[in-house]
Amino acid sequence: MNNLTLALDVMGGDYGPPVTVPAALQALTSHSHLHLILVGDQHTISPLLHDCHEDIRRRIDIIHTTDVVAMNERPVHALRKNKHSSMRLALEQVKSGRADACLSAGNTGALMTMAKVLLKMLPGIDRPALVTSLPSAIGKPVYLLDLGANVSCDSETLFQFAVMGSVLYELVEKRARPNVALLNVGIEEIKGNDQVQQAAQLLQFTPQINYSGFIEGDDIYTGCVDVIVCDGFVGNITLKTSEGIAKLLVHQLRKGLTEGIVVRFLAKLIAPRIQKVLNQMNPDHYNGASLLGLRGIVVKSHGNADQAAFLQAINLAMTEAQRRLPEMIHDRLESILLDINS
Amino acid sequence: MNNLTLALDVMGGDYGPPVTVPAALQALTSHSHLHLILVGDQHTISPLLHDCHEDIRRRIDIIHTTDVVAMNERPVHALRKNKHSSMRLALEQVKSGRADACLSAGNTGALMTMAKVLLKMLPGIDRPALVTSLPSAIGKPVYLLDLGANVSCDSETLFQFAVMGSVLYELVEKRARPNVALLNVGIEEIKGNDQVQQAAQLLQFTPQINYSGFIEGDDIYTGCVDVIVCDGFVGNITLKTSEGIAKLLVHQLRKGLTEGIVVRFLAKLIAPRIQKVLNQMNPDHYNGASLLGLRGIVVKSHGNADQAAFLQAINLAMTEAQRRLPEMIHDRLESILLDINS
Repeated sequence: MNNLTLALDVMGGDYGPPVTVPAALQALTSHSHLHLILVGDQHTISPLLHDCHEDIRRRIDIIHTTDVVAMNERPVHALRKNKHSSMRLALEQVKSGRADACLSAGNTGALMTMAKVLLKMLPGIDRPALVTSLPSAIGKPVYLLDLGANVSCDSETLFQFAVMGSVLYELVEKRARPNVALLNVGIEEIKGNDQVQQAAQLLQFTPQINYSGFIEGDDIYTGCVDVIVCDGFVGNITLKTSEGIAKLLVHQLRKGLTEGIVVRFLAKLIAPRIQKVLNQMNPDHYNGASLLGLRGIVVKSHGNADQAAFLQAINLAMTEAQRRLPEMIHDRLESILLDINS
Repeated sequence: MNNLTLALDVMGGDYGPPVTVPAALQALTSHSHLHLILVGDQHTISPLLHDCHEDIRRRIDIIHTTDVVAMNERPVHALRKNKHSSMRLALEQVKSGRADACLSAGNTGALMTMAKVLLKMLPGIDRPALVTSLPSAIGKPVYLLDLGANVSCDSETLFQFAVMGSVLYELVEKRARPNVALLNVGIEEIKGNDQVQQAAQLLQFTPQINYSGFIEGDDIYTGCVDVIVCDGFVGNITLKTSEGIAKLLVHQLRKGLTEGIVVRFLAKLIAPRIQKVLNQMNPDHYNGASLLGLRGIVVKSHGNADQAAFLQAINLAMTEAQRRLPEMIHDRLESILLDINS
């Protein structure tokens, strides 16, 4: 397997190096062809590398900076002022070709804005979209975008997201003409706000996209469509609400199964099986959203990711780099967009 | 207990009379002081009443109409053209004072528009909001509004929803100064679209409301706030996504606990306990959303409600009528709005 290099903004997210560095070491242990550039404060990073094996230490570079983009920083401010932030330096590794992909758990808006300016967009795409893969009742993955890179989207942007989502699904899941739907408050044609109404009009007259109409929230996880498109405000809240309700259900189940000696005893016996189901549903297993539409690979981790979740995001960045995703999307997108515009 | 009369649009929803009429009979059996006006096609309704006891039959009136508002009908069209629709006639029972509340599982937009025109708004409120009570990890209810009555809301509308939600929580849950939050993509002040940003500005300078800032989707069900405000597009998708993920988890759990003889046997023994937990989380138990801000009581049932779920919505309409909710909200709202404007 070819060597892969990822640049990690180890300072981003709620926990920073105490979570991101151990996850990085775990990834290096599992993948002998992986190299990592850890971008952040070396005084915090170095002590965390003390005990690591020489073979692993050799595959780590540190780019030292103490400048961090704060979670409440305005994207434009971060772009103009934080020239030496860990996030920006990580992105610059991809721009210069030193890294094949970069990963941050930091401020989403800042990451999107900086990535757009530094890495540039693919032709025909105006704005990057955050996309992730969700589980479904029939086992196949469902892609949801945008997850929060763009809090407001016009119909043209939603249309571009539909094209990108379709291309990504086709390439990664090896499925021709995936079904694409717009997330809405009803399936009837008259339902929704102006943006989804107009995006539906655009998609209806685009035979290159297998558009299957509107979808409601309760059908996201049934697997009835492959790609679901919405603006970043709705997508972010949809994803986080899913996490919230899953946690509540697990909490209630745990409570219900520990009340009473007999139930507690029986529940203990089947606990591994229940745990297996809950693990499949654990949002951490789906951590890592790709910033789609850029000329380079940028993965965003959940801000409150723990070590296991951050490791998932590293794995996602590796997979995308191995697949050379932006090049693949570029070619397919070009042929579809040429076809649409001709 | 005083007699109560509800008007039911029995034609609305995905199933119509075969679901709504049996639910109505169940409600009448449980509540001897309840009278129901069933609005719809008497040729479909009457056969469903054949077997019912004389005491129950006496408490039923039928208003015959074959005109039904379709799910894909534009609200303004429904208002102007469907003068004899089951939905409109049910609302008119409240307007004329013949009924204390009305209930429909039909087209939400049409119900909202007709209710607004026929019943009029409370002073200081421009648009009705759909509100429902959700479960939380700490046991207390959380109110979420708007759930789909208004797909686009400006900041002033969100502000009014916050005031109404606060008043409703205070009155129904008997809790002074409930915490009110705006649903957003981040908790930092800079996050969100223009509408939530400006609504936050308005709420920050309104000491009559216990405003606690932004909340993200994963905190809806933790119970960290009492009232959560968003536009109807986001609220509808949030609620339906919650249902979707809960169903997926139940599906996976059922699958996981029926594989293998030993697990299946043990799981059967604790099935009642698991079922109890799942029942608490069953969205049907939370069916029924109130159209808040009107001078009369209008409850919206989920379109695909089954008999048990429609019964829940009937119970909600009864509770609100017993509490004389619009009058209570009117008085409290008036004192708060007078205070804000003075």
